Amino acid sequence: MELEREWVVGFTDGKGCFSVGIYPHPEMTAGYQVLPEFRIVQHQRDVQVLYALKRFFKCGVVRKNNEDRLEFRIRKFNCLMKLVNFFERHPLKTKKQVDFKKFARIIRLMERKEHLNKNGLVRIVKIVMTMNTSDHERQSRILRKLTECG
Amino acid sequence: MELEREWVVGFTDGKGCFSVGIYPHPEMTAGYQVLPEFRIVQHQRDVQVLYALKRFFKCGVVRKNNEDRLEFRIRKFNCLMKLVNFFERHPLKTKKQVDFKKFARIIRLMERKEHLNKNGLVRIVKIVMTMNTSDHERQSRILRKLTECG
Repeated sequence: MELEREWVVGFTDGKGCFSVGIYPHPEMTAGYQVLPEFRIVQHQRDVQVLYALKRFFKCGVVRKNNEDRLEFRIRKFNCLMKLVNFFERHPLKTKKQVDFKKFARIIRLMERKEHLNKNGLVRIVKIVMTMNTSDHERQSRILRKLTECG
Repeated sequence: MELEREWVVGFTDGKGCFSVGIYPHPEMTAGYQVLPEFRIVQHQRDVQVLYALKRFFKCGVVRKNNEDRLEFRIRKFNCLMKLVNFFERHPLKTKKQVDFKKFARIIRLMERKEHLNKNGLVRIVKIVMTMNTSDHERQSRILRKLTECG
C-alpha cells in the first residue's frame, strides 16, 4: 500500500496524536525526562495502514496499544525531527495544527538541549500545559516542584 | 480553506462514517424507509473543516451532533451518488473501504428503486447487517418481519 502525502495529512488530522510526556528521571540534570511522541491508534484490522505509515516516514514502530488496538508510534528524536519537517511543509487543516506547532516548538528546544537545564524545562512544561493532549494537573505539580524556592 | 482530494480521503479514513438506517414507514410500499447517510463528526472548534467539506462536495449540511460536537452530513440521494462516485475514484485505504463498498452497493440498488419492493429491501437489510456500523439486533428483527410467512 502506497500512501500519498495529503492522505497522510488528512489521516493525521483525523487520528494522529502529538503529545509530550514529562517524567521524573533521577539521572537527568533537571530531574525530569521529556518524552515527545507521535501516535496513531487503529483497530488491529487496519494493521496494514500502520505499517504503510512506518514505510512512509521510514521511522517509528507498530506496537500493541490495548486489547484489539495497535499503534504506530514515533519516539526517536531524529525521527521526530523528520516528522516535524514533514508537517511543517504539509500543514494540518484541523485545530490539531495548534498542538502540532507547540510540539514542533518543543522539538526545536530539545534540539538545542534546552530540556537539560531547569529554565528550558520550565519553558517546555509551560508549553505542554497548553496542549490539548496534556494532563494539566500532573504538569502543574511538576511546574510547582521545578519553580519552588530552595 | 481548500481541501485536496487525498486529504479528504485520509480524513474520511480517520473520521468518516458510512451508515444505512432502516426505519418503519407506513407510507412506503415495503413498510420501511432506507436512509443511507455519510457523516463526519468533529469538535465544534473544527467547524471550519466541516464547512470546507461541504464546499468540497458541494453537498451536505453542517449540524449539531451533540453537546460540543458538530457533524457534516450527507443524506440527499443525488449527493450520496456524487459521494459514491468520488470514493470509487479515490479509494479509502483502511478497512472502512469494506463498509463503503457495501454502502455503494445499497446506493446503486436504491438508484434502481430496489428498496421500494420487498425482495430488494430484504437484500438491502442483509447487506446492512454485515456493515460495521450496523445495529445487528434491530436489523435482525426487521429481517424476521419482512421474511415471515403471511
